[in-house]
Amino acid sequence: MKKISLSLLLFFVTLGVMSQTKKSFTIDDLIPGGKTFYNCQPENLFTTWWGDRLVRLDVEACYEVDVKTGKEQELLTVKHLNGVLLALGETEKQAVYNTYSLSFPYAEHPWVLIKGEGAYRLVDFKKGELVWKVSTGRDMANQDWSSESKHLAWTKGGNLFVTTADGNVVAVSSDGSNDLVYGQSVHRNEFGIDKGTFWSPEGDLLAFYRMDQSMVPDYPQVDISTRIATTQPCKYPMAGEAIHRVTVGVFNPQTRQTVWLNTGEPAERYFTNLSWSPDGALLYIFELNREQNECRLVAYDVKTGEPKEVLYKEAHSKYVEPAHGLAFLPWDKSKFILQSQRDGFNHLYLFDLNKRKTAAEQIVGDSRYWESVEVKQLTAGSWVVLELAGFNVKDKSAVIRSTECHPLQSDIYAVNIANGKRTLLDNGEGVHRVALSSSGLYATDRYSTPEIPRVINVCSTRTGRKINLLTSKNPWADYTVPEITCACLKAADKKTDLYYRMVKPVGFDASKQYPVVVYVYGGPHAHLVEASWNYMARGWEIYMAQKGYIVFVLDNRGSENRGLDFENVTYRHLGEEEMKDQMEGISFLRNLPWVDKTRIGVHGWSFGGFMATNLMLTYPDVFKVGVAGGPVIDWQYYEAMYGERYMSTPQANPEGYEKNSLRRKAENLKGKLQVIIGYNDPVCVPQHAFSFIRACIDAGTQPDLFLYPGGEHNMVGRDRVHLHERITQYFEDYLK
Amino acid sequence: MKKISLSLLLFFVTLGVMSQTKKSFTIDDLIPGGKTFYNCQPENLFTTWWGDRLVRLDVEACYEVDVKTGKEQELLTVKHLNGVLLALGETEKQAVYNTYSLSFPYAEHPWVLIKGEGAYRLVDFKKGELVWKVSTGRDMANQDWSSESKHLAWTKGGNLFVTTADGNVVAVSSDGSNDLVYGQSVHRNEFGIDKGTFWSPEGDLLAFYRMDQSMVPDYPQVDISTRIATTQPCKYPMAGEAIHRVTVGVFNPQTRQTVWLNTGEPAERYFTNLSWSPDGALLYIFELNREQNECRLVAYDVKTGEPKEVLYKEAHSKYVEPAHGLAFLPWDKSKFILQSQRDGFNHLYLFDLNKRKTAAEQIVGDSRYWESVEVKQLTAGSWVVLELAGFNVKDKSAVIRSTECHPLQSDIYAVNIANGKRTLLDNGEGVHRVALSSSGLYATDRYSTPEIPRVINVCSTRTGRKINLLTSKNPWADYTVPEITCACLKAADKKTDLYYRMVKPVGFDASKQYPVVVYVYGGPHAHLVEASWNYMARGWEIYMAQKGYIVFVLDNRGSENRGLDFENVTYRHLGEEEMKDQMEGISFLRNLPWVDKTRIGVHGWSFGGFMATNLMLTYPDVFKVGVAGGPVIDWQYYEAMYGERYMSTPQANPEGYEKNSLRRKAENLKGKLQVIIGYNDPVCVPQHAFSFIRACIDAGTQPDLFLYPGGEHNMVGRDRVHLHERITQYFEDYLK
Repeated sequence: MKKISLSLLLFFVTLGVMSQTKKSFTIDDLIPGGKTFYNCQPENLFTTWWGDRLVRLDVEACYEVDVKTGKEQELLTVKHLNGVLLALGETEKQAVYNTYSLSFPYAEHPWVLIKGEGAYRLVDFKKGELVWKVSTGRDMANQDWSSESKHLAWTKGGNLFVTTADGNVVAVSSDGSNDLVYGQSVHRNEFGIDKGTFWSPEGDLLAFYRMDQSMVPDYPQVDISTRIATTQPCKYPMAGEAIHRVTVGVFNPQTRQTVWLNTGEPAERYFTNLSWSPDGALLYIFELNREQNECRLVAYDVKTGEPKEVLYKEAHSKYVEPAHGLAFLPWDKSKFILQSQRDGFNHLYLFDLNKRKTAAEQIVGDSRYWESVEVKQLTAGSWVVLELAGFNVKDKSAVIRSTECHPLQSDIYAVNIANGKRTLLDNGEGVHRVALSSSGLYATDRYSTPEIPRVINVCSTRTGRKINLLTSKNPWADYTVPEITCACLKAADKKTDLYYRMVKPVGFDASKQYPVVVYVYGGPHAHLVEASWNYMARGWEIYMAQKGYIVFVLDNRGSENRGLDFENVTYRHLGEEEMKDQMEGISFLRNLPWVDKTRIGVHGWSFGGFMATNLMLTYPDVFKVGVAGGPVIDWQYYEAMYGERYMSTPQANPEGYEKNSLRRKAENLKGKLQVIIGYNDPVCVPQHAFSFIRACIDAGTQPDLFLYPGGEHNMVGRDRVHLHERITQYFEDYLK
Repeated sequence: MKKISLSLLLFFVTLGVMSQTKKSFTIDDLIPGGKTFYNCQPENLFTTWWGDRLVRLDVEACYEVDVKTGKEQELLTVKHLNGVLLALGETEKQAVYNTYSLSFPYAEHPWVLIKGEGAYRLVDFKKGELVWKVSTGRDMANQDWSSESKHLAWTKGGNLFVTTADGNVVAVSSDGSNDLVYGQSVHRNEFGIDKGTFWSPEGDLLAFYRMDQSMVPDYPQVDISTRIATTQPCKYPMAGEAIHRVTVGVFNPQTRQTVWLNTGEPAERYFTNLSWSPDGALLYIFELNREQNECRLVAYDVKTGEPKEVLYKEAHSKYVEPAHGLAFLPWDKSKFILQSQRDGFNHLYLFDLNKRKTAAEQIVGDSRYWESVEVKQLTAGSWVVLELAGFNVKDKSAVIRSTECHPLQSDIYAVNIANGKRTLLDNGEGVHRVALSSSGLYATDRYSTPEIPRVINVCSTRTGRKINLLTSKNPWADYTVPEITCACLKAADKKTDLYYRMVKPVGFDASKQYPVVVYVYGGPHAHLVEASWNYMARGWEIYMAQKGYIVFVLDNRGSENRGLDFENVTYRHLGEEEMKDQMEGISFLRNLPWVDKTRIGVHGWSFGGFMATNLMLTYPDVFKVGVAGGPVIDWQYYEAMYGERYMSTPQANPEGYEKNSLRRKAENLKGKLQVIIGYNDPVCVPQHAFSFIRACIDAGTQPDLFLYPGGEHNMVGRDRVHLHERITQYFEDYLK
């Protein structure tokens, strides 16, 4: 870790001070869904880009903000907009109530897009005229609109439709069903997939997914809210079992013809990161084998559906995980940027389609790759690119977010495409988010640091010069806030840094001894500790600190943003390395004089529920009380896409599945463990928790169980408050 | 209550004494399914009748017992029998391992019936010869054999078959399915129904049920033990919803023809207590309307299927519950005995088919009835006939069990049919069971009293003179047994006697204060307190007493064996009167100086789970901790047959359903309440518990929940031990 000085700056900052006159938090203040939750959140402000013009959205009006001065000018009011709409014959029901959902898709026109009740409407707010309108219905799901062609794709049941710019509804498919699904997200949203339709650059062609899941069994979810309980079958491809088969079609709304891409065999593969060539003639697809250890980037001719060429192959002895599409340079359509972890960290690679080269496989560490064009690595280093936000077309730079400043941070950089030179665009502290203007010359920069709840700036992506739009006051200023610290430990491998957060009890007194609750997640694709406000402490941790607990949170190996080796050390034996690292945290805690070694608890949800249960069963003499939410119990019950990436299949890795099945450890339960699930969890299906309960009964051990009927993988709204009251009470009953 | 002297004798007997040198029970000693449970049960002995000869069944041999002297003589040995079977060409697999399942169906022949592996066999054990044999298969369910014709009826899938005496298999039906079920029990085993086939006296005709349940929705039970969880649909006719439709056929194995009885409309009725006329020409059926307030006894001509006449009608302003078939007098086939509660208590009525009379409806209290023949009431009084065990054909008497001696007892009487005179055949103490010899001249009398674990006598049903076969030793002689007492209180109506049992903590000290756990059932068709061994105390009560709790058990109004008014006071508002009576018990307890009023808990299962939950929610300041097993939460989720009898339909009694739905009271929860269910409970389906949990979440209250995956309405085997460890721990955690 190279930025030691910065980390010293960040760490051991103590937040909050004791004061007898300050307020205590209620659970409603701290848990999302709580009645007073938003009163305790930092002030916010919402913006959108209209070309290179910044618009601030508010309830009664929106305002154009001068990006150089920050000065505001009223752009349009809700009242004015509704006046226009009513004059055009729209009903009261179709009125606009605030400006938050408005957008300005055309830099060159004063047109506002209103996706309101029953229609998409473009209104010229200067002239007060309707520019364009098509009707929509509430049952039109997965709406995907092209601002270029104004065609709207949508789904209903299993079928895909297009409402063309002139308002005609065209059916892309007619045989859609629960078994055969068109135009929706596939592969359970893994591999960066979150939708099923992809308009071409001109909006004249629609690429879409078709998923045949007739061979996938239904998990029998039960709805108890009907007069007589009913099943809600839910296709669930478990690890090692049959998976759905995906094909890609390209629909032409003008000819009403679909061209199917000839992706060939085997059908059991993953098709991801669909990207259009800038001219709309080719569709690029990453094709990943079921084993997930080799992917190919294939270009298809959308006129014929035939593959044109394989541009790139990437393989790894464990797994590869393509998660990003191609980003063509706006000023040079023969070049695109691809993100890859092939050197061990996620970085940018510039592909030049004009420079062909003779194919030869290269090997770097556990990765193998092969390219048919010249490729230049744009970024490098033992840090990761978190996001390619877009391009500054004037300066010919890419704007990215990365962890280069520090593993816990996310900072904004401009990367010069020609020479790879990086320019830090933000203040080099905390966790930043970025939204670029259409040319990429400007960006909004939203960030927080451990001490600062929220700052929103608008900045130049050339110079980084910024105008402050909002600096939130500390919403907790009147409350007694526990001390929150952050630092790092060595992992079980004795070399890797692991970052942790600690929340100390309110009124901490080092001469006393306190119980500890470890909050854990520990799985891939997530981290819990970062340099954002309060080091990302969750409201519940504050609540527990108020009740007299130390809360300890550590991101073990296997979690995200630390590079490939850090993550894939867990391959084929999920849980083992992760627990070793958590136990390093426990060793650290047990050496603190103010920690009561006899009162250590653990709580986690989802992968964290797996971890919490596993820790209770693997270290029964360390952990006295645990609460495991929505836990994975046996990876054979988890879905194939995520599960097989990390565990391979039960057929190929029977020992790994068996050894890390928590059913096998049920007999070890010694302390108090409460398993909590959403009864209708479609992610970690109830079979996990129930099979664990069965195993415990058979082993003669006594876990506790609770479920939220109608609840899914995470409890939301009032249920979330109820849940956290419940979790808290369990520690109060048995750990206090 | 007329037998005050006897009740004084029974009550306040204290059982067990304190001794420091005696053993304590483990949970395995006390809970069925426990490893040492049978070591702690009274010694037993098994008998069967061979005509008027008594046979004692044992492991290696069975013995003929002289009913006058009790002297035994070896009848046959397992070794001998297996020798015969092997000589006849049977395999080792078809050997007999003990004599417990043997029977001697023919008084006149030394033939033993062996229902063994793969066959029914009659062996002449004197000659060592096979008399008769037909093959059977493991998939032949609901086997029903006629000793007269030697035909065997059985079912497979939804269909009914007969294996005729000569071994031919004849299909009675072929369109059977889960929707259309032949030859099985119907109406969810209510109305005294427990099977679906009924051989005529000669065994030449087979009456059977056919149930069309295509209109009944499936409750979606889920099996989590399969690789991927699967649904196990289970037809469940909820209160007020569509119910199955039952018809009765009469199959003739010789002609292979079925005659369907023309039962007419409405199809939504209950057909119960099928009884053959002694000549096999008529089939008598009780036909009950869906409202369950009027039943008719109809005779059908089995040749034509047409109704011949209506013999009897009985109606009640609340409900009637026909639960017994007709018992024709063996010596006079023109007379039969019918059981009815029409005078408020279950009694015997003698119907004389030869004496016709002009029909006129009579009204007695809330009952109305109508007879087409002369009827003589054979028994009367404010006590109930519990069983018509059979007839003594020599003395022309019926042998019954009744509560005449005392409401907590069951004693054996001979009732002279001619004059109604009753002769007490047992010792007038405790709870007796009876099994008559074929002529009814002799009977085995198995009983226990509060002090005596088990006595088995054989007696003359003429004189009551008895020979003792077994007097068990007290299996708890070496254990420290808590004091168990029994007495009565007045119900909430201030007049009705309610009986209770109290188990005091081991080492009871009246100067201390103890927590109390009320164990409750409280519903119809059951009682918890009787004058059997330890007043019927359950092992768990002993276990809790050992842990320092008082256990209190009271049979409230609504429970069985106390007459119709006692039971039906709860009509249309189940729970309300029952709780009032339980609160009388609580008042009594709270006045005892050694009861800690702040530590009162409650536990119950099924209807008792409903009661326990209801008490927790209705008296939140009285009950601190509750455990409710397999509870009814809302009667709309319970099945129509049982539920509508007591609650009418949700359509006809919306206020009753609403007011007594425990979901409505979820917000009242104050103490700790754990709901426990079998996850695959087909009786109180999981919708009860889960809808309650949902209601509590919505109301912001915090019940606990546990479930036994694969468990049904009651936990059995090791699960039962686990369950009681769990229940105990809950009280230990929160009530101690």
